[in-house]
Amino acid sequence: MTRERIYLFDTTLRDGQQTPGVDFSVADKVAIAGLLDEFGLDYVEGGYPGANPTDTEFFSGKRTSRSKFVAFGMTKRAGVSASNDPGIAALLQSCSDAVCFVAKSWDYHVRVALGSTNEENLEGITASVSAVVASGREALVDCEHFFDGYKANPAYALACAKAAYEAGARWAVLCDTNGGTQPAEVRAIVEAVIAAGIPGGNLGIHAHDDTGQAVANSLAAVEGGVRQIQGTLNGIGERCGNANLTTIIPTLVLKPHYAKRFETGISEDALAGISRLSRAFDELLNRAPEPQAPYVGQFAFATKAGIHASAIAKEPKTYEHVPPEAVGNRRRVMVSDQGGKANFLVELKRRGIVVPKGDARLDMLISMVKEREAQGYAYEAADASFELLARKVLHGLPEYFSVPSFRCMVERRFDANGALKTVSEAIVKVLVDGEEKMSVAEGHGPVNALDIALRKDLGRYQSEINDLELADYKVRILNGGTGAITRVLIESRDGTGVRWWTVGVSDNIIDASFQALMDSIVYKLMKNRELAGLAAAE
Amino acid sequence: MTRERIYLFDTTLRDGQQTPGVDFSVADKVAIAGLLDEFGLDYVEGGYPGANPTDTEFFSGKRTSRSKFVAFGMTKRAGVSASNDPGIAALLQSCSDAVCFVAKSWDYHVRVALGSTNEENLEGITASVSAVVASGREALVDCEHFFDGYKANPAYALACAKAAYEAGARWAVLCDTNGGTQPAEVRAIVEAVIAAGIPGGNLGIHAHDDTGQAVANSLAAVEGGVRQIQGTLNGIGERCGNANLTTIIPTLVLKPHYAKRFETGISEDALAGISRLSRAFDELLNRAPEPQAPYVGQFAFATKAGIHASAIAKEPKTYEHVPPEAVGNRRRVMVSDQGGKANFLVELKRRGIVVPKGDARLDMLISMVKEREAQGYAYEAADASFELLARKVLHGLPEYFSVPSFRCMVERRFDANGALKTVSEAIVKVLVDGEEKMSVAEGHGPVNALDIALRKDLGRYQSEINDLELADYKVRILNGGTGAITRVLIESRDGTGVRWWTVGVSDNIIDASFQALMDSIVYKLMKNRELAGLAAAE
Repeated sequence: MTRERIYLFDTTLRDGQQTPGVDFSVADKVAIAGLLDEFGLDYVEGGYPGANPTDTEFFSGKRTSRSKFVAFGMTKRAGVSASNDPGIAALLQSCSDAVCFVAKSWDYHVRVALGSTNEENLEGITASVSAVVASGREALVDCEHFFDGYKANPAYALACAKAAYEAGARWAVLCDTNGGTQPAEVRAIVEAVIAAGIPGGNLGIHAHDDTGQAVANSLAAVEGGVRQIQGTLNGIGERCGNANLTTIIPTLVLKPHYAKRFETGISEDALAGISRLSRAFDELLNRAPEPQAPYVGQFAFATKAGIHASAIAKEPKTYEHVPPEAVGNRRRVMVSDQGGKANFLVELKRRGIVVPKGDARLDMLISMVKEREAQGYAYEAADASFELLARKVLHGLPEYFSVPSFRCMVERRFDANGALKTVSEAIVKVLVDGEEKMSVAEGHGPVNALDIALRKDLGRYQSEINDLELADYKVRILNGGTGAITRVLIESRDGTGVRWWTVGVSDNIIDASFQALMDSIVYKLMKNRELAGLAAAE
Repeated sequence: MTRERIYLFDTTLRDGQQTPGVDFSVADKVAIAGLLDEFGLDYVEGGYPGANPTDTEFFSGKRTSRSKFVAFGMTKRAGVSASNDPGIAALLQSCSDAVCFVAKSWDYHVRVALGSTNEENLEGITASVSAVVASGREALVDCEHFFDGYKANPAYALACAKAAYEAGARWAVLCDTNGGTQPAEVRAIVEAVIAAGIPGGNLGIHAHDDTGQAVANSLAAVEGGVRQIQGTLNGIGERCGNANLTTIIPTLVLKPHYAKRFETGISEDALAGISRLSRAFDELLNRAPEPQAPYVGQFAFATKAGIHASAIAKEPKTYEHVPPEAVGNRRRVMVSDQGGKANFLVELKRRGIVVPKGDARLDMLISMVKEREAQGYAYEAADASFELLARKVLHGLPEYFSVPSFRCMVERRFDANGALKTVSEAIVKVLVDGEEKMSVAEGHGPVNALDIALRKDLGRYQSEINDLELADYKVRILNGGTGAITRVLIESRDGTGVRWWTVGVSDNIIDASFQALMDSIVYKLMKNRELAGLAAAE
């Protein structure tokens, strides 16, 4: 049986730009278009040339090689011809393969927002599409407010979509602009549109997440018959966002419910790069990835429950709706208070630590982890601290160096110019190979000062930690008040790009930070020796 | 036409506890159960008494008044009677109104995970439900892996649900445990279950978000005929989370597609509190609310100036799928001074601050707030700091006292017994009525020491702040690294029970804490004078 093709249309660079807090530069857009093109999307909508300098410059060159590069704009204004409309001219001058027009399809908006007649709006669609087709480009029409418009005046909404289709638009895209339509309504309205004479192969869906169902609405439209889906990377977009392509694509490719009927332009190899794509995009936006994101999130294949963990160890597939490798992600069994022995064995094995199930030291490790988690330690979030503790308890660990004392000082006072200034300073005493070393440093705040002083002179270990860098720092107060317990999580990275998390807990935030900083350094020294040992053994 | 009742079952405290990084204390659980009960949910599942000390203690008392308080546990083991099963005993000893059993309904899992026969599993369901019903409690059964089980062996999955129903369970809950089932499949399978003889009024749905469709799957199950929905606050839960009740509830109540057929226990008044509920829960978890969350997110009704701007100014309602007030949220038109100004006037009026719309000081306040929020201040979460700033800019505020300098010291050293100890000390210089006062204090950590020293001697104001107390303290690092910007939020309360939040932002955590502590004291002094003024005027 031949499968029908679903076309994927990315609007990260156009509708995604409406996300509060997101503002792409031309360089950002070039980088993102490159990622999308390489991944294999059918269409990449780049923005609105003529509307702002960024988009105009972005469309001064062709930015994709495989994907069709799409310029977005409005249909011609009433009262001028398409050839005299400056907006249309900018679209036709842009280096685009296709032009996607936005056109009102709710008569109320035609009247109130455009101040036009229904007929002028239809003429605008026809003339604009014809101009693009005549230029040799592909034309698309986003039918704005289509579903709300259809509920208010089905004949007019249909007339707009038909005007686009009959003028030669490759796609009439049905937009749920306000995002409030329910999946059952989407499907029913799509079926009505197809019954009214526009083939599903010429229809697209553009959904928003205002009721948390942008993905479901997109798939309901596919069930109804549309064959193009518009969405964005990680679901960015106005208000609650657009349909999330990083969720929709794995579902279309991996779920038999769709895969047996449909195919997309995304190969299995490309799909295995989708977690990386999602994270690369977050990096570019400089925001933390959503750990619970479907398919691509850090926790998408993580299990915490002890009762499930033993079954997962026996047969992981029965607890996973798809194989994590298929989307470039991996299974995680979280070590936590709730985890049983099976969890621990799985996690230790992944770190190359082998210990017999009956070993008494394993029980000691488990009870230590439980006790420390009751105090506030969070080992599931601090992989490196867990591994350190496990190795220490199970096999012992040398003390590379010790810190007999440290002192941090924060002072707010007037500086030479009479302005109030806050200064932080830390003094650390380190004992390496019997030799005492004192270091002092200033920093932004006491923890920063302590971090710098602690890593200033570690004697013969100093060269090993020169490339160590603090990547992230998180503080959580575990119960109310300033006298409460504080948990500090620290992410470190080294010059090779390896990253690890450590944890510290105390009623004193400086002390908690110190523990996490110490763990980070000791972990790095331990790993170096492990790698050296492996190299020596080869 | 009478509407059918949909029952809402919250499992934030049970399945929500499976979220990586979430670990509720008994106090947390008591607080959250209170929020859920007050909001009006039909069922609040609190945890698994007998499985861990936290849950056992939590179930030592009844924690809800309106909602049914539900204990979760496993069905009896094979080979023992229900009355001899220690797990069942713990459930029956708990202070619960209802017991929800989890039972395998996929024959594969019965064999591999339980190591039981299919018949033993069915007997376990029947005997366990009967024991709960005999105790006078309501019984529910979560049919684990129901949808995957149904696809593999429909007769056995059905037999499990039927065993629950026929033994007297009020609800047989169909669980999509692995979260991979598609809405169309959910609906079809629900319809098949009803056709096989279990009434929809006795069926529930438990969906996970692994394909981003937990909400859609829950609603598809309702379309198919189930009348109970299980979910969590803000969609927390294992892997990608559970169905998000803060999304589902507004959809059921506000969308005509459902509201004309169904009713819930949530009144319109209660619904207007859902944004507050969602944020209160995030505060309790100490995590940043998701700004793009449907209905309740900060950006759920935000529009960025663009092609829609003028139309929104003309008629905002046609760009909103529901009125933001219905869910206790508000419209935000970004980069639009008009929209911004109206919002400010509303916010100021709410605090009794009257200012003419054309007043230049209002523009100054707006630009100061925007600038400070760009730096990291969060005035939405720090009411008292916002009011202080507004009064300062609009009407001026006397300087009650000043702090020309302070010093905090944290030292880790050996104590008299040779044990490592960390000590914190703060010295504060305060200027009151031209007189300099120095105070020193030790504390748990530098911020605690600073707080105590600062409030030790404020001269003639001292008597006014004797009843001031720090109720909560939150730290958020706004960007990575220990050199990053830190935001501190402090909640204070006085002897009359009044509470207020203040904020501080700096690259130095001590400095940020100091700002928030200062704001807290100044706010208290200002409020005292305001009350005295009102009393004098009477």
